Amino acid sequence: MISGTTRDATKLLVIGRFFLFLLAAEMAFPNPTVRHFRWNVESIFWSPDCIENSVMAINGKFPGPTIRAKAGDTVVVRLTNKLNTEGVVIHWHGIGQRGTPWMDGTASISQCPINPGETFIYTFVVDKPGTYFYHGHYGMQRSAGLYGSLIVEAAAAEPFQYDGEFNILMSDWWHRSVHEQEIGLSSVPFRWINEPDSLLINGRGQYNCSLAAGTCKFEGAEQCAPYILTVHPNKTYRLRLASTTALASLNVAVENHKMVVVEADGNYVEPFEVDDLYIYSGESYSVLIKTDQDPTKNYWISAGVIGRKPNTTQALTLLNYVSVHAGHLPGSPPPAVPRWDDFVRMKSFAQKLRSISRNSAALSPPPVRPHRRIALLNTQNLFLGQIKWAINNISLSLPPTPYLGSIRYKLRAAFDPSPPPESFPDGYDITVPAANRNCTVGNGVYMLGFNTTVDVVLQNANALAANTSEVHPWHLHGHNFWVVGYGDGRFVEGLSEKGFNVKDSPVRNTAVVFPYGWTAVRFVADNPGAWAFHCHLEPHLHMGMGVVLAEGVDRLRQIPAGALRCGLMADMPANRTVGG
Amino acid sequence: MISGTTRDATKLLVIGRFFLFLLAAEMAFPNPTVRHFRWNVESIFWSPDCIENSVMAINGKFPGPTIRAKAGDTVVVRLTNKLNTEGVVIHWHGIGQRGTPWMDGTASISQCPINPGETFIYTFVVDKPGTYFYHGHYGMQRSAGLYGSLIVEAAAAEPFQYDGEFNILMSDWWHRSVHEQEIGLSSVPFRWINEPDSLLINGRGQYNCSLAAGTCKFEGAEQCAPYILTVHPNKTYRLRLASTTALASLNVAVENHKMVVVEADGNYVEPFEVDDLYIYSGESYSVLIKTDQDPTKNYWISAGVIGRKPNTTQALTLLNYVSVHAGHLPGSPPPAVPRWDDFVRMKSFAQKLRSISRNSAALSPPPVRPHRRIALLNTQNLFLGQIKWAINNISLSLPPTPYLGSIRYKLRAAFDPSPPPESFPDGYDITVPAANRNCTVGNGVYMLGFNTTVDVVLQNANALAANTSEVHPWHLHGHNFWVVGYGDGRFVEGLSEKGFNVKDSPVRNTAVVFPYGWTAVRFVADNPGAWAFHCHLEPHLHMGMGVVLAEGVDRLRQIPAGALRCGLMADMPANRTVGG
Repeated sequence: MISGTTRDATKLLVIGRFFLFLLAAEMAFPNPTVRHFRWNVESIFWSPDCIENSVMAINGKFPGPTIRAKAGDTVVVRLTNKLNTEGVVIHWHGIGQRGTPWMDGTASISQCPINPGETFIYTFVVDKPGTYFYHGHYGMQRSAGLYGSLIVEAAAAEPFQYDGEFNILMSDWWHRSVHEQEIGLSSVPFRWINEPDSLLINGRGQYNCSLAAGTCKFEGAEQCAPYILTVHPNKTYRLRLASTTALASLNVAVENHKMVVVEADGNYVEPFEVDDLYIYSGESYSVLIKTDQDPTKNYWISAGVIGRKPNTTQALTLLNYVSVHAGHLPGSPPPAVPRWDDFVRMKSFAQKLRSISRNSAALSPPPVRPHRRIALLNTQNLFLGQIKWAINNISLSLPPTPYLGSIRYKLRAAFDPSPPPESFPDGYDITVPAANRNCTVGNGVYMLGFNTTVDVVLQNANALAANTSEVHPWHLHGHNFWVVGYGDGRFVEGLSEKGFNVKDSPVRNTAVVFPYGWTAVRFVADNPGAWAFHCHLEPHLHMGMGVVLAEGVDRLRQIPAGALRCGLMADMPANRTVGG
Repeated sequence: MISGTTRDATKLLVIGRFFLFLLAAEMAFPNPTVRHFRWNVESIFWSPDCIENSVMAINGKFPGPTIRAKAGDTVVVRLTNKLNTEGVVIHWHGIGQRGTPWMDGTASISQCPINPGETFIYTFVVDKPGTYFYHGHYGMQRSAGLYGSLIVEAAAAEPFQYDGEFNILMSDWWHRSVHEQEIGLSSVPFRWINEPDSLLINGRGQYNCSLAAGTCKFEGAEQCAPYILTVHPNKTYRLRLASTTALASLNVAVENHKMVVVEADGNYVEPFEVDDLYIYSGESYSVLIKTDQDPTKNYWISAGVIGRKPNTTQALTLLNYVSVHAGHLPGSPPPAVPRWDDFVRMKSFAQKLRSISRNSAALSPPPVRPHRRIALLNTQNLFLGQIKWAINNISLSLPPTPYLGSIRYKLRAAFDPSPPPESFPDGYDITVPAANRNCTVGNGVYMLGFNTTVDVVLQNANALAANTSEVHPWHLHGHNFWVVGYGDGRFVEGLSEKGFNVKDSPVRNTAVVFPYGWTAVRFVADNPGAWAFHCHLEPHLHMGMGVVLAEGVDRLRQIPAGALRCGLMADMPANRTVGG
């Protein structure tokens, strides 16, 4: 424990550093603004898919308000928890939180849950333009509806132009409460949440509606009334697509309109044209469409489930040419969803993504070789009869004390101090269920050398059932990574990396791992903090499918006490500094 | 902040005092024992009334385990919260918590919620024999099933004898989750929870079963199979009855068997015989029955809703004479439930209770006059369109920082420092809805002089709807009170108290207020701490029907940090002492 005087001096130093950071931000971005929001999180009755449910809402609305800011701005969200007994946190998905790792909004990792009645002030800089979103990151509160869009406009010219834009946040929806879903996932025997009841576009869907039977409605003021995109002819529009689905991987199409992909997860990509786009939970894209079709018609915008055997009605809304009545239906059927198990087609889409190389927006290629390579085997296992997802045979069970504090303040009892495994047995056969069906649960941390380059190879395998391997979109907090390679089968150390793209591999924060394949990502551990890296499917994370990474935590001077006062940290002396 | 050395010295002093207390307890009670329990609180699927629901369980069972201890014992419950996102606390209903007010288990008042993954160790002395129970005291977690029995056996002879005993904890049950119930209660327009779907006896009931249609089952191993009381003929049994209902007031009867009431809320009463017994939420009784009926038959034990217009099937189980097959049904119909609105009969029962005057068990009469009289008007009002219950026009809204810490450490921003009103306008007409339908919300505290005698007159009134006044069982934490009087209409200061019984008024922790009437209680504010005093109906408390009292908090040396590290206390230096 440091004395009062030292602490005050440190405090000034830290505050000084923070202002220096703001100053640096101000130099890089003209006229940065501080954007203030006051949010109340509460549960309300709402009808996302025309069926009433309890929904986690912000300021009485679902989804939560869209945040729009400009690169370089500081976003300040004064969040009050108006729930009755549940804590809450909000993760700002895709925002780097450089210098503010305690603002990442991950319970057990970056902060304590904000308890009912408490207010926590999220303050962070959005330094990178792009299409982002935010969502709850505690229990399965994202599935409960706690999400919204976060759009960071560019402060400088972008490598493409457009006349207007729309923001589309995709999600999936269940009628069964997340509380019951959670119980089922922990039950013996296991009860799966099943496929979503509905898909939502900007929080709006229609449960089980049928075009054939005429039960889908495209007009009205209902909470579930579709979000219709009204456009002028012969213009270019940017569609900002993001997916915060709990489970569904999606294929999105705009009838008769080509899409040119220009951004992925807040990073510009070399433009490429597609008829339809695959988007996995945790991902975002910008696509440009030209409204060059017959302007006396409307056109379907559709999203359907792929990657899992679907059992959910396709989500639909309309691209409405302005001279046509908004709810007028196209004469044609909606775009057909590609076969759900056409993984070749999905991989082909993934392979099209390349980092942009043109002019000022060019992104650096990855360092040519890593300092360390970690292989993470993704398996489905049993623990005390419960079905779990495990990484190198350990299913993640988050501790009550946030890692950021327990690492910084050396609370050695807070989590398992032994390093989790970096690899898995050479002889592991990824094509069949695990020979040893049992895994352990754990909460160890991959400690990364500060500023080192790290490769992670995400190795998919067979789940518990024979001939089953699932899609897992892995999301990394606090960093972007280069997706240096995909492969089928097992990654072969010394061989597979020869095929890595270290020239123009796409920069992202989420990368999908295909069934029976591997995905390799590379990043530089240059952001002091403790960071989640996990499958972005909500039930999978809930079942333990994630790891925790940390780097440079000792470089953080002090962490706002308000972020960390729980678990073992509750007994620490107060060290309030900036923020929080 | 005190220095380390002083703190250690204080700690020793406090620990010393604690051991002195234990020593004193040991002298009063022969062979006191420390009874250890390890509990995990989690939500599970369970079928309390033969319909599956999510239920808050302890160690995988509903209701939670029964604690049995002997007067003078120390109970240690190591409670781990295994919920996903909800905090939890457990209140030990009827236990005085003298010297351990931070163990009272009331969120916002005596402690912070125990967050998911955290463990809190409840440690307290059960110094008074009696029939008690425990339950969640956060949000509506009691309604969610978080409760169980707590039986404190006498260390010395009791003023009655019996050959065997049974423990019966009554509750009511809804199929709609408490999360949805809570949303409805806060919604505009208001959505009432409606009458319970079922009544439960020791957590077991049968939804909508019909004796006539033969759909009630009295045999089997189901979770909802009735708890049958098997007795030998010609013996005396003690039935320990407690009610933790969320809403229902009950009338309980044992077919053909008289009940002699001998205990109320852990206090001996002058025995009296009844055919049936009225029990309100928060109350407990012991009754003696003689098994003097035809031993070749079984007999109904029944409980039905009174006090509100009922819409719930009567709860049934069997008194089974040992030579008869346990599930054999009586030939006769179950005891009829008295008319739900026969308040005269209910009042007559309440008036029968007298403090015992015989031999060693005699309880002291109340001090003849109080130092202070507080009148609390119970009304139903509106606040921003929401329906609330208000006390002297203030609806209680609990703050995130527990009062015990904010009073002790003078965190003046933690709650409204202005004292709440001690009375209500002379001209208030209790027979009609409030002229001003609006109330305010607040969180002020009634600060009581230490060791002073306080009267509280609970004045009922008309609710929002005309010709409606409800039953409210008020429960006081940390104290017993003498129920010095009941009256119809409005309490008239200077006149009504002339009728107070200050000779043998019953000692209790819960007292019912009848429609359009008043109930007066007297207690000595001799237990340092912050204490809830509230309507024990779960939705009513949730809608603000309670107050907070505090006395002698400055006499508490230090409070375990683990109990209080939340809200504004999160920024306080750690002051860990004993316990917690």
